[in-house]
Amino acid sequence: MDGHGAPRIERKDGVATITMTRPARRNALSREHLGQLLAAVTEVGQSDALGIVLAAEGPVFSAGHDFADVAGASLPEVRSLLRLCTELMQTLQDVPQVVLARVHALATAAGCQLVASCDLAVAAESAGFAAPGGKGGWFCHTPMVAIARNVGRKRAMELALTGDVIDAATALDWGLVNRVVPDDQLDAAVADLMGRATRGSRASKAWGKQTMYAQLDRPERDAYTTAIEVMAAASQLPGAVEGMSAFLEKRRPVWPD
Amino acid sequence: MDGHGAPRIERKDGVATITMTRPARRNALSREHLGQLLAAVTEVGQSDALGIVLAAEGPVFSAGHDFADVAGASLPEVRSLLRLCTELMQTLQDVPQVVLARVHALATAAGCQLVASCDLAVAAESAGFAAPGGKGGWFCHTPMVAIARNVGRKRAMELALTGDVIDAATALDWGLVNRVVPDDQLDAAVADLMGRATRGSRASKAWGKQTMYAQLDRPERDAYTTAIEVMAAASQLPGAVEGMSAFLEKRRPVWPD
Amino acid sequence: MDGHGAPRIERKDGVATITMTRPARRNALSREHLGQLLAAVTEVGQSDALGIVLAAEGPVFSAGHDFADVAGASLPEVRSLLRLCTELMQTLQDVPQVVLARVHALATAAGCQLVASCDLAVAAESAGFAAPGGKGGWFCHTPMVAIARNVGRKRAMELALTGDVIDAATALDWGLVNRVVPDDQLDAAVADLMGRATRGSRASKAWGKQTMYAQLDRPERDAYTTAIEVMAAASQLPGAVEGMSAFLEKRRPVWPD
Repeated sequence: MDGHGAPRIERKDGVATITMTRPARRNALSREHLGQLLAAVTEVGQSDALGIVLAAEGPVFSAGHDFADVAGASLPEVRSLLRLCTELMQTLQDVPQVVLARVHALATAAGCQLVASCDLAVAAESAGFAAPGGKGGWFCHTPMVAIARNVGRKRAMELALTGDVIDAATALDWGLVNRVVPDDQLDAAVADLMGRATRGSRASKAWGKQTMYAQLDRPERDAYTTAIEVMAAASQLPGAVEGMSAFLEKRRPVWPD
Repeated sequence: MDGHGAPRIERKDGVATITMTRPARRNALSREHLGQLLAAVTEVGQSDALGIVLAAEGPVFSAGHDFADVAGASLPEVRSLLRLCTELMQTLQDVPQVVLARVHALATAAGCQLVASCDLAVAAESAGFAAPGGKGGWFCHTPMVAIARNVGRKRAMELALTGDVIDAATALDWGLVNRVVPDDQLDAAVADLMGRATRGSRASKAWGKQTMYAQLDRPERDAYTTAIEVMAAASQLPGAVEGMSAFLEKRRPVWPD
Repeated sequence: MDGHGAPRIERKDGVATITMTRPARRNALSREHLGQLLAAVTEVGQSDALGIVLAAEGPVFSAGHDFADVAGASLPEVRSLLRLCTELMQTLQDVPQVVLARVHALATAAGCQLVASCDLAVAAESAGFAAPGGKGGWFCHTPMVAIARNVGRKRAMELALTGDVIDAATALDWGLVNRVVPDDQLDAAVADLMGRATRGSRASKAWGKQTMYAQLDRPERDAYTTAIEVMAAASQLPGAVEGMSAFLEKRRPVWPD
């Protein structure tokens, strides 16, 4: 049984792919697995990788929390589990890399939250998305923080209250994923979007995604206060200087970072 | 004349349907009617009902405020009227039940705000939605608080500034309603979606919808602070314990609440 | 060379059209041009115009910042440039007029931000939209404040990270523009939407759009606090009194403001 397998990390062309490899456990986000994923994302986040693909093996992308961790657990134990899970979700946004979810089958509850928490997502036509806690006994409170920020309010309520699965086309229409492709084209579509999303200056892009999350959800004027300061500072980065010089000199830029 | 009829409350299979019954007044939200609706929603909110359907009789769903209340009224009087109206809208979100709007015709101004303030909405193909204050003399300021949180910013501005009616298909595309069905299938679609949305543990679902509104519109990290705490506490509810035990024991859950 | 031409202001039927006239510079938002646009919008904002159309001449709508202003500039100089640019974007929201972007070709970076910052936008089928800083060396931090508030989060990340151009149909689907029409119908569509958006009482509409921006992005209850107070005060405006009186008396209103 591979129930305790740590995620696999593969590096190629500047992109690190982190693959959940617990198909027999439906890639459930047990405390142990959350810790392993957090360690993997943190490790790659400190490397010189340009991008991170979050992928999974097996019959589902991820089934979310492992009820074996929660059934019978005390309030402090569950709080600590949810804090760990939230730390993983926020780390996906905090790392300097572009983070892209590669979704090939069902992504449910905290598994759907993973998709919602990545910067970008590409789904196979076979993919499905759900927040099933609402039709069970434990509502998907923390998953809905991320999911509701990807889809509209009525749609978030529908997902949360019904627990029903939406298909990949609906997820695309609602803005939860960026691309839907036939299953056999999933890797090519992931590579294509990641390639587009990692062009240019690494340092500029890192500040870019981090500042996006810092300004989203805030009143527009507060958001500008943050964005002006970061964008002014970013103009002094070697990559910005090179990019603008190359543009003005009509030559290809050589990214220094 | 039935101009002063209180809303009708009908209970069936755990769902209470509150129907506005002032067709001759186009179900205008007069001060009296707002008070009656607030009383009805509050009363059902304190009952053991699982869900609330908000419906209407007559040629329109609701035409919004009754200008007879406002024309000639002083600033304190209008402020008090808008506070009452807002209390109704917020009570729809505060009650523990799933609240679903059943929209069969025009829902305008505060009538459209009612739809926007419900957790879910099902519309007949004949339905239409508008915020007409902007083409008149009294802009739909408070309706737009709710409506803008359902649709995008440019679409909210279009509704508010033009006052034009959008049809049901557009409302679905923009995320203002969850379903659009032929008029003669409206009750079946309402029953189907309400059935799906009220499965599972009642207490879990009540905390679920209340916490959703508490975390929406907030910076993501603040939202997580709330959601973690509630979800940890929710794991200790009898319904959560039963739901997870049943899942792990591969049996059907028996919801205790 | 017309590189230093101030925007042209034309007034017709209560609508002022401000046209960027630097086609040879791709209507780049140089410091000088930002200052001229701010002066133009401020001037019209203080006039009795009902609406402002923001338009452009030449092969693109606007290419955004002029790198000649930024390359080699110090941090304080760039900060001051971005503050000026932000002041223009916020002034579009602060003026009492309805502001509508007429987009006929590429709107990129701060040029796309202009579209996102207008109340409404009508695009020709030939239009395209991009935030290309992310594929260069200087991420579109401040443009994304406005753009991300028009489109969903995943879509905002895709625009910002890839720098790719989306076409007009996609911009419509994502909610960045309100209408897409064949290029030869652009002026007619702009006039039609502006006409619809400027019906009714001028003072009511001015408070309306300003309050919308004040309440958006805020927690719903805080938004209601603002909206209730403004809507109550707005009920006392001559336009509101006339609008409601005319409605109750079944006659056409005569807008006093």
